Amino acid sequence: MSFSKDGIAFEVADGIGRITLDRPDIGNAIDLPMARAFFEAAIACETDASVRCVVVTGNGRLFCAGGDIGAMRQAGDALPAALTELIGTLHAGIQRLATMPKPLLTLVNGPAAGVGLSLAVMGDVVLSGKAAHYTAAYGAIGLTADGGLSWLLPRLVGLRKAQEMILTNRRLSADEAEACGLVTRTVDDAELAAEGEKVAQKLASAPVAAFGAARAMLRESFESGFETQLDRELRSMAIAAGAEAREGIAAFFEKRPANFRGA
Amino acid sequence: MSFSKDGIAFEVADGIGRITLDRPDIGNAIDLPMARAFFEAAIACETDASVRCVVVTGNGRLFCAGGDIGAMRQAGDALPAALTELIGTLHAGIQRLATMPKPLLTLVNGPAAGVGLSLAVMGDVVLSGKAAHYTAAYGAIGLTADGGLSWLLPRLVGLRKAQEMILTNRRLSADEAEACGLVTRTVDDAELAAEGEKVAQKLASAPVAAFGAARAMLRESFESGFETQLDRELRSMAIAAGAEAREGIAAFFEKRPANFRGA
Amino acid sequence: MSFSKDGIAFEVADGIGRITLDRPDIGNAIDLPMARAFFEAAIACETDASVRCVVVTGNGRLFCAGGDIGAMRQAGDALPAALTELIGTLHAGIQRLATMPKPLLTLVNGPAAGVGLSLAVMGDVVLSGKAAHYTAAYGAIGLTADGGLSWLLPRLVGLRKAQEMILTNRRLSADEAEACGLVTRTVDDAELAAEGEKVAQKLASAPVAAFGAARAMLRESFESGFETQLDRELRSMAIAAGAEAREGIAAFFEKRPANFRGA
Repeated sequence: MSFSKDGIAFEVADGIGRITLDRPDIGNAIDLPMARAFFEAAIACETDASVRCVVVTGNGRLFCAGGDIGAMRQAGDALPAALTELIGTLHAGIQRLATMPKPLLTLVNGPAAGVGLSLAVMGDVVLSGKAAHYTAAYGAIGLTADGGLSWLLPRLVGLRKAQEMILTNRRLSADEAEACGLVTRTVDDAELAAEGEKVAQKLASAPVAAFGAARAMLRESFESGFETQLDRELRSMAIAAGAEAREGIAAFFEKRPANFRGA
Repeated sequence: MSFSKDGIAFEVADGIGRITLDRPDIGNAIDLPMARAFFEAAIACETDASVRCVVVTGNGRLFCAGGDIGAMRQAGDALPAALTELIGTLHAGIQRLATMPKPLLTLVNGPAAGVGLSLAVMGDVVLSGKAAHYTAAYGAIGLTADGGLSWLLPRLVGLRKAQEMILTNRRLSADEAEACGLVTRTVDDAELAAEGEKVAQKLASAPVAAFGAARAMLRESFESGFETQLDRELRSMAIAAGAEAREGIAAFFEKRPANFRGA
Repeated sequence: MSFSKDGIAFEVADGIGRITLDRPDIGNAIDLPMARAFFEAAIACETDASVRCVVVTGNGRLFCAGGDIGAMRQAGDALPAALTELIGTLHAGIQRLATMPKPLLTLVNGPAAGVGLSLAVMGDVVLSGKAAHYTAAYGAIGLTADGGLSWLLPRLVGLRKAQEMILTNRRLSADEAEACGLVTRTVDDAELAAEGEKVAQKLASAPVAAFGAARAMLRESFESGFETQLDRELRSMAIAAGAEAREGIAAFFEKRPANFRGA
């Protein structure tokens, strides 16, 4: 499956689903048709068993400027209803990517703001170009936060920096974002696509069932009690101990790379 | 409303509520009358609609030395009951400031210990004088932690440093506190009041409804599931999209500063 | 009580329980008999009232290489059942150490991987030799995580680095582990035992009831609401305000070190 419409380009190849935010003329800002196309691509990534890893990136100078503020202005007095539909649709897509049992890689090709920040940092692995920077940007226009930002930021960078970003609109450079854990690591802008391809291939070759389970446990970690999480770990190990673990253990003793794609 | 009694000075002006810990002769240590006055000031900050931002600071060389240990000694065998009344009253005030729908700024003018540490770091924004330092100090006298410290420290600095501060009584300098996220940033001692005034004015001019909602979501972030928080974000955006958002979006397109005080 | 069997050496002296992982010929890798001996030692640490502090360390070049992968290979198709028994037993021991009302010190004498990483970083205080390094190592053999790692890592180092360690198998040096809060601090390898002894003595001389309560609150912090935790703090202070607090407050005014061992 592949499509390009309403600001989303989507394709699947080599076990990798690639979603590109593709409205470069307005900084990949998201309106309702684009949110719907994003949701559609996210569903495809989750349900297509051939997809072992998903990559989200942006086309052009920005990664994503956030919600389409022009569309918000046009909504006028209907803004609450319009925001509810836009955000509800976007959240439906974000939930698919956040909870699918396969890893998510984001390649941040440029500045990310508002819900663009949420999308940028939601990857399990986030590679940031040096030209990228990170801004919450909601407060400036009298809004709060969406896309899971108020859930994710404290987990990634601690409550203090989350407060600073959301309540004082502090903008972080790519290097600052790496230092505090907002992104996994920075990459020269010219190297981002190539380095991203390497990481995507690696993730697509990983034991996808084990990674899906590990990712779910990391997502549920902070809000879970110790004993609950211990039991999840035990169950996930017993479940993981199928074809992937047999292949992994065999490869370990045969001193060869494991082939999880066949497992 | 304004008052000065029992070690608390309180005044409201320009949309800002200012609470000053004011028992400088004993390091602003807190006894029961002072805790009651603090609770009273906190109630006023929450309920006075003209207050858009609250500032807590200390008078004298210390920010706050913690609970009044002299009063504890006097309690003798009645110490458990005395502590319950003191802490219960103080917690009632802390809860008002922690959950009010408006931002809290703390200006840490000097060393903070025990429950003084809790008060110092509970701000959404914490400016620390260079002469301040930070100590949990409970273990040394056979006590545990109060004022929300065991809730807040792990969220701000991670579990490891929280353990170090509470179980080994590690003292952090102002610079260390900034580096690990205990405070937002350090300021030269001579500049603290002026810099604090600037930040307070900025917060008082921010969209207070949006900030109130954002602050509630940050407070509830760690213990909440992803889907729950996504729904809170959606609702808060729909609610936020009232007068403040209309003003913010209009100002954005008119390329002028937004006026949220009038919104 | 003391014993040495199945890869665990255990002894109690001077109020300190010492558990040593002692299968140095295979990197202290853990099989079922060793997990059972570990559980037994953990029960003794929790139930022996003379034990005021527990120390876990490893014998030989490694701290612990993780689960015994040779035993896993031998399990063949029975791997899920074998893992369930091994991990269930190990978790039973880990739960005792994680929830006992006394402090836990780990001395990481060398590399830690897999569930060895979980054991290494579960201390309230973790001293790391410079030669130690830290690897999750599960993904490489198609497994997920156990020993509480998926609960503990995000709390210690944030979600981003936890993802990096678990999903990309990033290995951290001792210095990196200190910088990000995975360990409390690093110590020259030759100094680890002596420095560990000092810290153990200090912890054993601390107010054990207060530390037990503080440790429980830190463990429950992230997943608890603010008001719930405030009430726990209040109750723990009222409870703590027994013999230990009386001794601590008296010592404070008499300007002498407190003697909590006698309290």
